[in-house]
Amino acid sequence: MNNEKLIKEDLAHIWHPCSQMKDYETLPLIPIKKGRGVYIEDYDGNIYIDAISSWWVNLFGHTNPYIAKKIKKQVDRLEHIIFAGFSHKPIIKLSKRLINLMPKNINKCFYADNGSSAVEVALKMSFHYYKNQGKKRLHFVSLTNSYHGETLGAMSVSDVGLYKEPYKEMMMTPIHTPVPYQISKKSAIAKAGELEKIFQQNPDNICALIVEPLVQCAGSMNMYHPLYLKLAYKLCKKYDIHFIADEIAVGFGRTGTMFAFEQAKITPDFICLSKGITGGFLPLAVVLTTDEIYGKFYCDYSEGKSFLHSHSYTGNPIACAAANATLDIFEKNNVIKKNLKKIKYIKNSVKKFQNLSNVKEVRQTGMITAIELKGYEPQTRIGLNVYQYALKNGVLLRPLGNIIYFMPPYVIKKNEIDKMINVAYEAIKSI
Amino acid sequence: MNNEKLIKEDLAHIWHPCSQMKDYETLPLIPIKKGRGVYIEDYDGNIYIDAISSWWVNLFGHTNPYIAKKIKKQVDRLEHIIFAGFSHKPIIKLSKRLINLMPKNINKCFYADNGSSAVEVALKMSFHYYKNQGKKRLHFVSLTNSYHGETLGAMSVSDVGLYKEPYKEMMMTPIHTPVPYQISKKSAIAKAGELEKIFQQNPDNICALIVEPLVQCAGSMNMYHPLYLKLAYKLCKKYDIHFIADEIAVGFGRTGTMFAFEQAKITPDFICLSKGITGGFLPLAVVLTTDEIYGKFYCDYSEGKSFLHSHSYTGNPIACAAANATLDIFEKNNVIKKNLKKIKYIKNSVKKFQNLSNVKEVRQTGMITAIELKGYEPQTRIGLNVYQYALKNGVLLRPLGNIIYFMPPYVIKKNEIDKMINVAYEAIKSI
Repeated sequence: MNNEKLIKEDLAHIWHPCSQMKDYETLPLIPIKKGRGVYIEDYDGNIYIDAISSWWVNLFGHTNPYIAKKIKKQVDRLEHIIFAGFSHKPIIKLSKRLINLMPKNINKCFYADNGSSAVEVALKMSFHYYKNQGKKRLHFVSLTNSYHGETLGAMSVSDVGLYKEPYKEMMMTPIHTPVPYQISKKSAIAKAGELEKIFQQNPDNICALIVEPLVQCAGSMNMYHPLYLKLAYKLCKKYDIHFIADEIAVGFGRTGTMFAFEQAKITPDFICLSKGITGGFLPLAVVLTTDEIYGKFYCDYSEGKSFLHSHSYTGNPIACAAANATLDIFEKNNVIKKNLKKIKYIKNSVKKFQNLSNVKEVRQTGMITAIELKGYEPQTRIGLNVYQYALKNGVLLRPLGNIIYFMPPYVIKKNEIDKMINVAYEAIKSI
Repeated sequence: MNNEKLIKEDLAHIWHPCSQMKDYETLPLIPIKKGRGVYIEDYDGNIYIDAISSWWVNLFGHTNPYIAKKIKKQVDRLEHIIFAGFSHKPIIKLSKRLINLMPKNINKCFYADNGSSAVEVALKMSFHYYKNQGKKRLHFVSLTNSYHGETLGAMSVSDVGLYKEPYKEMMMTPIHTPVPYQISKKSAIAKAGELEKIFQQNPDNICALIVEPLVQCAGSMNMYHPLYLKLAYKLCKKYDIHFIADEIAVGFGRTGTMFAFEQAKITPDFICLSKGITGGFLPLAVVLTTDEIYGKFYCDYSEGKSFLHSHSYTGNPIACAAANATLDIFEKNNVIKKNLKKIKYIKNSVKKFQNLSNVKEVRQTGMITAIELKGYEPQTRIGLNVYQYALKNGVLLRPLGNIIYFMPPYVIKKNEIDKMINVAYEAIKSI
């Protein structure tokens, strides 16, 4: 079995996500045989450093033995049980641990399977919360350049045209408020001013503001100052509007703190988590919220105020076992603190990119680092050249247009960081 | 550790799906410790037959050793890999096998994580297919009493008011066509006539008709004749409208054939699968479609016609390993054929319900059997009495209003069928 044979079999029957399938004629698919730590290996024996954590999900390495062990144990005990009317220990344990990581008013967990579904839960809950009190609020506010998922509700509050444009007639129309385009307090203050205008113009008609705290990942890895979160949150409280923190991509340590919103010292009304929650092993998502919100749905059934959302595999025990194992590793290995050194090391290592004539900006928030190129028209798809160069040299990067970024698993070692960065550097120099 | 202690810990932090949380004050949650075959066991040592396959997902028993073995093997090899640009053997194998089970024009698989997301993929693909050819079609047609999921797009084409009503301002408005409310050819013909009127009234403005073939599960287990599918499909072809078969609940043998649409000898343009696909172990979903549809998205990237939908865990290798193991069991054990005997046995066993004065109808399609009660107002929530009686007697039923139904794992044995049916019979007699 080699790459070529598997690629042929793949293309016969598979339509890949987020892909123009014709691209695979010139940029061959890579069938992966196995993974270990930061490395993945294909069927031709090529080995790559997974510098993007397989779409930002992997935290502690591929086939992490500890997480694998816990999954295997759970599979033999209870693989799944309906989560309406029933429960199980892994999810009870997980919920308690997640709540312990949250500000004190966050006290309830509602589960789903993927990030899009979590965003849908938060939007529906916010909308329904007002309705349960006899208030009909029709709008959501989200940031320009935002990305919140692919299902129509989640996509409706997004603003990345590439994903959204074809479907615009199928969706709600959100109100977009300008996001700060730099990590600066001045910009944060200016953009919060714009947000307040929107709140003033739509009294009692906005359910929630939804944001990706600190880093808009799919949105060109745009980064902004925590002060914006602080100010936006204050405005939400002032105008009685929910604050939804979509931490699907940035949660679990990516921005340097366990959750990005912590850096603004705020308590969002809803926090959406997924991706890293299982260490990158299995799909699982959760929306955390307050007892106050929960309370507005808690009543006699006959009042018709129940939140009846469900997915068949909600709270899957195997995925919960992986999530508990992931939290074990965070605790035992003091991961957040240990990452600080790696963050600093990466910071120093990427300075040299500034000297390249085709680099516009190098930006970093915690374990996420982005290098923005300049001087290329979008249609040249310059990122693909970097992608190919890096693959040939043993590193999986997946640029977003002209943004090259690193979001590696936290188990990456110094020499692996060096390789990842040097290959990207040479790639950018070569184009 | 006992039920009481775990229930308390659960309720402190968990908001359960499809639940009025206040109900748990009188109908206690049941924390499950382990599962084996059709049985689940709680922390007080009570054992229950899972007569609803944990929300219609389990096929071959809890912690089925063969599926468990295959998962454990995969966990150590490759737990996950980004599915854009990359691939892996379990999904290549699975896709080929799924395609082999389909009519000959179905040739492509697009993956997602849950049923709602699969429906969203089918809707977006259908809409986008027309748009890629310069046609703007704005409507979807779905059946009255339908259920297609919880995310806003999937929910928009649903018609079960209980789940949908609170959110109606957030969604597209579909066109509903009346579903046949009985398994009769006459009704099928009449309702197909209604459908044709809708198609005639909306020329070139309907993307697709979406149906749950043969059984509307969440919609009170309403069953209808395959002739309706045949006629509706013919109309779709006549008026150039896509036919989407939502087989999330009815696929993988539930209706007696591997897929329900087979009984109408049709080739839907889109087939959505989830639930049973992993044997009830892990979330996974897939949308199968034709090369013709795939072809309308296949072009140079610059044309802007790509289907860029994605979920982080799309095509998760562990879930695919479970799905391959599930298909192994279907093949090795000749499951569809062997189920015929069970279907017949259940059919004979449920005849006695007809004699109960509070039974309106007994209906069955394959491995799905429903008993509709009569003489109870909805607000009495009579199903809950049956639910409680059955739990006390070792059977997990989860009535839909006044519909008591059986959808057991296929490994259920004769004596277990007897127990399941007898407990339900006594429960109905007792209310």
